[in-house]
Amino acid sequence: MNAIPTPAEATLGGVWTPTLTPLTTSGDIDSQRLVAHAQWCLERGCHGVGLFGTTGEANSFTVAERRAALEALVAGGIDPRRVMVGTGCCAGPDTVELTRHAVDLGCAGVLMLPPFYYKGVSDAGLLRSYTEVIEAVDDSRLRVCLYHFPRLSGVPLGVELVAELATRFPGTVTAIKDSSGDWSNTAALIEGCPSLAVFPGSETFLHAALKAGGVGCITATANVNAAAIRGVYDAWVSDDGRAERRQAGVSRARATLDARPLVPALKALIGHYREDPAWRKVRAPMIEFDDAATQTLVSELEGQRFEYGGRIED
Amino acid sequence: MNAIPTPAEATLGGVWTPTLTPLTTSGDIDSQRLVAHAQWCLERGCHGVGLFGTTGEANSFTVAERRAALEALVAGGIDPRRVMVGTGCCAGPDTVELTRHAVDLGCAGVLMLPPFYYKGVSDAGLLRSYTEVIEAVDDSRLRVCLYHFPRLSGVPLGVELVAELATRFPGTVTAIKDSSGDWSNTAALIEGCPSLAVFPGSETFLHAALKAGGVGCITATANVNAAAIRGVYDAWVSDDGRAERRQAGVSRARATLDARPLVPALKALIGHYREDPAWRKVRAPMIEFDDAATQTLVSELEGQRFEYGGRIED
Repeated sequence: MNAIPTPAEATLGGVWTPTLTPLTTSGDIDSQRLVAHAQWCLERGCHGVGLFGTTGEANSFTVAERRAALEALVAGGIDPRRVMVGTGCCAGPDTVELTRHAVDLGCAGVLMLPPFYYKGVSDAGLLRSYTEVIEAVDDSRLRVCLYHFPRLSGVPLGVELVAELATRFPGTVTAIKDSSGDWSNTAALIEGCPSLAVFPGSETFLHAALKAGGVGCITATANVNAAAIRGVYDAWVSDDGRAERRQAGVSRARATLDARPLVPALKALIGHYREDPAWRKVRAPMIEFDDAATQTLVSELEGQRFEYGGRIED
Repeated sequence: MNAIPTPAEATLGGVWTPTLTPLTTSGDIDSQRLVAHAQWCLERGCHGVGLFGTTGEANSFTVAERRAALEALVAGGIDPRRVMVGTGCCAGPDTVELTRHAVDLGCAGVLMLPPFYYKGVSDAGLLRSYTEVIEAVDDSRLRVCLYHFPRLSGVPLGVELVAELATRFPGTVTAIKDSSGDWSNTAALIEGCPSLAVFPGSETFLHAALKAGGVGCITATANVNAAAIRGVYDAWVSDDGRAERRQAGVSRARATLDARPLVPALKALIGHYREDPAWRKVRAPMIEFDDAATQTLVSELEGQRFEYGGRIED
């Protein structure tokens, strides 16, 4: 048995998925489908779900829509202790409002992007942003998972800055999601920020992260492949010799998905496998997959270590 | 005399400045200083002012803050027909709300960023974003100035897409601000989108744009150098032979400013020249200039073709 990874300050760990946000035909958030899908993710093996990460089209929704969806999720029976909420907006007061809301609802933590419009901002400026939010929320229940996703945010969180935030706010800044796709950066975070729970942003690095002292992963594709990804984690914990093989399988499925615009691809897959094409709908500036694109993707995933491919248990 | 530039569909033209947004000591928008500053910009020669562009720290404010500030500006006596309002947010419904608000207040137009969190989105997706907003606002008074600022938004608006929007929404999509800093792109827009009023996003290209069929510029530095920049425009209109020399002078001053983080630099200059240091304050993730940085900048601008340098009339 490998020890279940629990860094000193960590309250978060394991396989998490930032849930997709299903929409009604008019483009509003479909809270019924949202609750059902979050339930599915948890039942299929996720330790927790994220609401309004990149995969959840967070920034395509207003603050009011985001609040209402979280309230619906909790009212729908999802345990808030298994929910992490994306709250990082460009405007500090929006981030404060969403963060306070998540804390008040008892959520496990918040996933916090830096303000992402201005580029090339200084570490001092980013430190100021996070500090202002944390001090404004001013709540001992707050757990912040920093969110490093330079390709989309355009605002990298360097290891030094992350370490400074962890030192300045022990017990509050407790985790980081590294969506850089750069393993050397994830390794540097694990090494340089020992108090933080470090999650790579893709299951591609799950086994590597666990071996190096990371705590799991937060990954979009667990929306359609939770059990297989959880299988890697469980194999690592039980140290049964299957982790490497399972990792190779989920990595291959991930690569198939990464060759697509990920959010429309994942929504199309759910629409396909649940025979519920309404699931395809995305908000602009994204565009839905059509039948042909969906079918091609389904074919490519056939036989892979994939929820609907039937080869996830071994 | 050169003809004052008025493309077929244009209702906007000349020298516009996206106003800085002054803050109170607590970090809220200081609407009294905002009104006074907008008035100053207009008196010093701007044809109009923008509210909540990049220079106005637009995305650092909530929708409610942005609405309130525009209402204060209009209530404070600024003619809304001389105001263009930045309304492009990541969430379509926020863009719709701010755009409708600006139209209802009688503003000259809106400056509309594309949704800027997701990168690498397709032209079809961006077309969908703009179309959804324009159709939701559904108001014949709406005038959209597209906003191309790839370095900050990370979401370029290509010439083909811009031309398609101009064709699809004649009389509504009537202008574009090109903050690429790439003259060849501005020239391509003037050439490829004849119905649009094309504004370069810097006075550096003002004379070049006017000669090529552009309509003026929308420029941050007119917050501190309106009269000198207007001087280039007026010299071009009167064809008095001074345009080139004036252009060289304002371009040099601009280069001095471009070597700094522009928004804190401009706020520091206003704080200095108006002996009102409260003006320095910026919102995170920006950081204020300190005394030393301000003094260095002031020294470098001395004797230049600059509002406070005393050499703008010749």
